[in-house]
Amino acid sequence: MRVPAAVQWVGGVDGHIELIDQTLLPGRLERLTCRDVDTVIEAIQSLRVRGAPAIGIAGAYGVVVAADEARRTPLAPAAARAHVLARSEALASARPTAVNLRWAVERVLRAVEGLPEDTPAVAVGETLLTEARAIHDEDRQRCAAIGRHGANVLPAGGVLTHCNTGALATGGDGTALAVITTAWEQGRRFDVFADETRPLLQGARLTAWELVQRGIPVTVVVDAAAAHLLKSGRVAAVIVGADRITACGDTANKIGTYGLAVLAAAHGVPVYVAAPSSTFDLSIESGADIPIEERAAREVTHPLGVQAAPDGAGAFNPAFDVTPARLIKAIITEHGVIEPVTRETVAAVLRRK
Amino acid sequence: MRVPAAVQWVGGVDGHIELIDQTLLPGRLERLTCRDVDTVIEAIQSLRVRGAPAIGIAGAYGVVVAADEARRTPLAPAAARAHVLARSEALASARPTAVNLRWAVERVLRAVEGLPEDTPAVAVGETLLTEARAIHDEDRQRCAAIGRHGANVLPAGGVLTHCNTGALATGGDGTALAVITTAWEQGRRFDVFADETRPLLQGARLTAWELVQRGIPVTVVVDAAAAHLLKSGRVAAVIVGADRITACGDTANKIGTYGLAVLAAAHGVPVYVAAPSSTFDLSIESGADIPIEERAAREVTHPLGVQAAPDGAGAFNPAFDVTPARLIKAIITEHGVIEPVTRETVAAVLRRK
Repeated sequence: MRVPAAVQWVGGVDGHIELIDQTLLPGRLERLTCRDVDTVIEAIQSLRVRGAPAIGIAGAYGVVVAADEARRTPLAPAAARAHVLARSEALASARPTAVNLRWAVERVLRAVEGLPEDTPAVAVGETLLTEARAIHDEDRQRCAAIGRHGANVLPAGGVLTHCNTGALATGGDGTALAVITTAWEQGRRFDVFADETRPLLQGARLTAWELVQRGIPVTVVVDAAAAHLLKSGRVAAVIVGADRITACGDTANKIGTYGLAVLAAAHGVPVYVAAPSSTFDLSIESGADIPIEERAAREVTHPLGVQAAPDGAGAFNPAFDVTPARLIKAIITEHGVIEPVTRETVAAVLRRK
Repeated sequence: MRVPAAVQWVGGVDGHIELIDQTLLPGRLERLTCRDVDTVIEAIQSLRVRGAPAIGIAGAYGVVVAADEARRTPLAPAAARAHVLARSEALASARPTAVNLRWAVERVLRAVEGLPEDTPAVAVGETLLTEARAIHDEDRQRCAAIGRHGANVLPAGGVLTHCNTGALATGGDGTALAVITTAWEQGRRFDVFADETRPLLQGARLTAWELVQRGIPVTVVVDAAAAHLLKSGRVAAVIVGADRITACGDTANKIGTYGLAVLAAAHGVPVYVAAPSSTFDLSIESGADIPIEERAAREVTHPLGVQAAPDGAGAFNPAFDVTPARLIKAIITEHGVIEPVTRETVAAVLRRK
């Protein structure tokens, strides 16, 4: 059974974005229609759409929505261009850590840079949509390639993953989760463990939901049980996604990934990162230079909206942490596998594109 | 401001146990009256009362309740004795990991072993109550001593704790949390971080609540943020309680403690365990021999009772894990500080009692 698409464009140049509202999963599968940029930004910031590649695709289609807003108003060509640029900047900065978002928004904008000044607004919109669709299609193919490359290197035995890196996080079948589902579809059988991934429980809510949809048995654990699980010998590999990877392979990913990598190393279990090449930010050398988004205390103090911590208690809620390259056995990209992870091997595999 | 007692005996020999129903905190502070052993066992198994020392005290008073049941029935002396022994065994085995529970129940029973066969039932009950009260009083004093010894060795700087080890977990001001509150009451000032401690969120719900009651600022973090926090340099010490400690110092404590200890070691942050001597089980050499309670999947799949994981997903829910002695800088007991933690130093400090 296939998992429905996290993000899709419905209709032609005057169409709209349809998102699965992931905040309602696994209880309800509801779609959110985005016909204006504010709705897209709100959906990104509220994590109705999340996962670096899916956010990038939403951002790319968001530029098409911005151009549609300008046509509907309607704005004169110069004002329309200013509107699209301003809305695109707002889209690109809706979340600070995921590098794909700005990358996708800027790539869509570049597609119309060379167009003559007098290009009709609809033709501009069509060019933007074509580029956004290309980003989406390429992501789908990248996921498939990551799944294949990853299945080739994934060792036999149980797998532990963190957060959600599947169809809900991407334009295709996922990154880290695509490695798991590809190996499974090749006929391999193994235990799949999913960290619940507090504070937003993407592992319990989304990864477990995707695996149940696909008929793959999954066992959810609280994040704090990972060490005990690793010590038990039931996990042969940890595999996670990434939000941003530096030139030397340091990887920003969902909070908890760094701790999981330290624990895996302490138990001799290899850690694999699976991410498309668009996740690499070669302008940054070290993980220490990656900005880490801090999110609202309420995500910690009110799990699933229910008060857990008392009034008066503070909370510290970093959304990401950084795993140094030395703790990563390999990075699986659509161009192949980076192993060992060094400045040179990162550059060599990324040159293949 | 003082935190109300987790467990107390109300009245004389025909009195009852009053517990704070900790499953309702921090939202509601409600007391549960226990006039029969089944209510006590249900409270222990449902974690209305939790924390190894508090469970021990509830178990001790539970034996008094068992004797009261026998008098109320009423049962003849031999049947009464059999009833008390059977109910005491049920109490002692209500939770498998905490060694204090069986220790306390058996100690109360031993107090009446030497009594003549024809001792009036009320006198038997009074002897049991006196012994249970003694266990409670001693625990209060032990907590105070642990707080003092711990404050002497706690390094300057931020402190991170896991689960709840305060007044709600003991008969006094706590174990690990007593070290923190004692140091604070001595005028020292430092950041206090509390792991939320999934699945049952005792850190967010109970530790944060106790600290707010005492006017000590507290910052709650999700368990998976601990590694990032340790890396940030804001934590100078990790301090936790224990459910069972072996002869060589291996320590069973709330799930997540072992991982936290591995992470602390990786960042050069010392880990302190604070526990009364009754937590030691010298009959067990290695942590590998400590039975680990596995609790219901629902605690994982339904945080705070709200469904997070989809129907069809499994869950693995070990309640405890084992931290090897080599990861523990010192164990703080009421008799003094065990440091370094070895078979010999454990034996030496425990001999002081």
